[in-house]
Amino acid sequence: MNTTPLPMLPAQALPLAELMADEARSIIKRYFRTRPAVDAKADHSPVTIADREVEALMRKHIEQTFPEHGIRGEEFGERNPEADWCWHLDPIDGTKSFLSGSLCFGTQIALSYRGTPLLGVIDQPITAERWLAGSPEPARLGDQAIQTSSCSDLTQAVLYTSDPACFDPEQVPRFTKLREAVALTRYSHDCYAAGLLAMGQIDLLVEANIFPYDIAAQIPVIEGAGGIVTDWQGNPPSLEGQGHIVAAANVDLHAKALALLQAKL
Amino acid sequence: MNTTPLPMLPAQALPLAELMADEARSIIKRYFRTRPAVDAKADHSPVTIADREVEALMRKHIEQTFPEHGIRGEEFGERNPEADWCWHLDPIDGTKSFLSGSLCFGTQIALSYRGTPLLGVIDQPITAERWLAGSPEPARLGDQAIQTSSCSDLTQAVLYTSDPACFDPEQVPRFTKLREAVALTRYSHDCYAAGLLAMGQIDLLVEANIFPYDIAAQIPVIEGAGGIVTDWQGNPPSLEGQGHIVAAANVDLHAKALALLQAKL
Repeated sequence: MNTTPLPMLPAQALPLAELMADEARSIIKRYFRTRPAVDAKADHSPVTIADREVEALMRKHIEQTFPEHGIRGEEFGERNPEADWCWHLDPIDGTKSFLSGSLCFGTQIALSYRGTPLLGVIDQPITAERWLAGSPEPARLGDQAIQTSSCSDLTQAVLYTSDPACFDPEQVPRFTKLREAVALTRYSHDCYAAGLLAMGQIDLLVEANIFPYDIAAQIPVIEGAGGIVTDWQGNPPSLEGQGHIVAAANVDLHAKALALLQAKL
Repeated sequence: MNTTPLPMLPAQALPLAELMADEARSIIKRYFRTRPAVDAKADHSPVTIADREVEALMRKHIEQTFPEHGIRGEEFGERNPEADWCWHLDPIDGTKSFLSGSLCFGTQIALSYRGTPLLGVIDQPITAERWLAGSPEPARLGDQAIQTSSCSDLTQAVLYTSDPACFDPEQVPRFTKLREAVALTRYSHDCYAAGLLAMGQIDLLVEANIFPYDIAAQIPVIEGAGGIVTDWQGNPPSLEGQGHIVAAANVDLHAKALALLQAKL
């Protein structure tokens, strides 16, 4: 865990992130509901032309404005991976939704300092909903300050997760325990669920086997709205390699969810 | 199965359905993302104030315009259940989504003649998307004619279902076979998925243990766009009691999906 004091965000960082999200919107809108050409990556997740076009554009912007920064993107890999400041780009998080005409997808942009994400933008291009946070400023949906829920009772809590098939075999019974303890469970919302958590509409978001670019933007947004994000061991999420995430509206609910996910089977 | 010739829809039926959907929008918008009071019905599905307010209003309209028609609603039960013409009302299909701020819900209105639904409206109040069909006119999204996809290859098909936990134990392996055969599977979209199927964005919609008011509006919309809707035995869906549904973009794909759902285990 990083123990050095965290610096201020570069002044141009949030405006640049918003500009990139604006430009992503206009590209993504052109491809939405066209069932565009799909190729299969090694992990068989669908990836679209729009995905690549958006990431290429974002990289150009970052290289111009912050040539010394690192970049990690879903589509085009790493640049300056050892830099203190690093951008994490997920042009279309929820490609399965995007490809099938659902609104449950978004563009994600994050900026981290030595592994701690300090800026996050989650943008839904079609509904024009944008959740954002740039530490130390609190999280917003557009111009509106947002806040996570105060629900600390698991039996009242709303749980979202992206894919019931994403869990490892030993995670399935743990997740099932949590699912059976909460009021209701919904699936397949990807980053849109992080927005719903940050604005107090849902209470828990659990994911398994996700990549750093899936979660990097969600951490500042959820935490900037009063929530908490850790891995399944209760540690700060790593921005290296695949991981498992428990995000909650507040620390009480988080502790209860974590206890079920860690329960002896 | 009904073998009598089907009559024309009453001329006022579709305009009335659209008026009711318009009024439902303004009520539902007031309650969306307010996390309103929730009570638990016998089946523990959440039901909101908005749900009841919309259905009460719709019933008033129908009773005024078509006093001899039957009405079956999610919230307030049956009126004239023996009438030839019967309205099926689902003020908020996808209450779990509605309650948690997701856009994956909608208002559903159907009119059936002796058990065959001839008119269907699926309305998303927040995004203002409205799928509708009034036999014999083809299905539309707003003013735009829509058409299901021509995908007849299961390995390329996109499958949606509302809840991975909705299946009976003996249905689980059958659904799993289908899920493993298709290109991708998404969940938790309720009636919104029927709209995506009708407009060619997805190819298969499979549901289990759903009520007639869940499906009645979807049948004319999907079939009016070129698709096919049956139960898991390949028969026309019954509008009596709970049922299991396979909706497909075309008959070829439907036959392939049905074969997997009916496979010997």
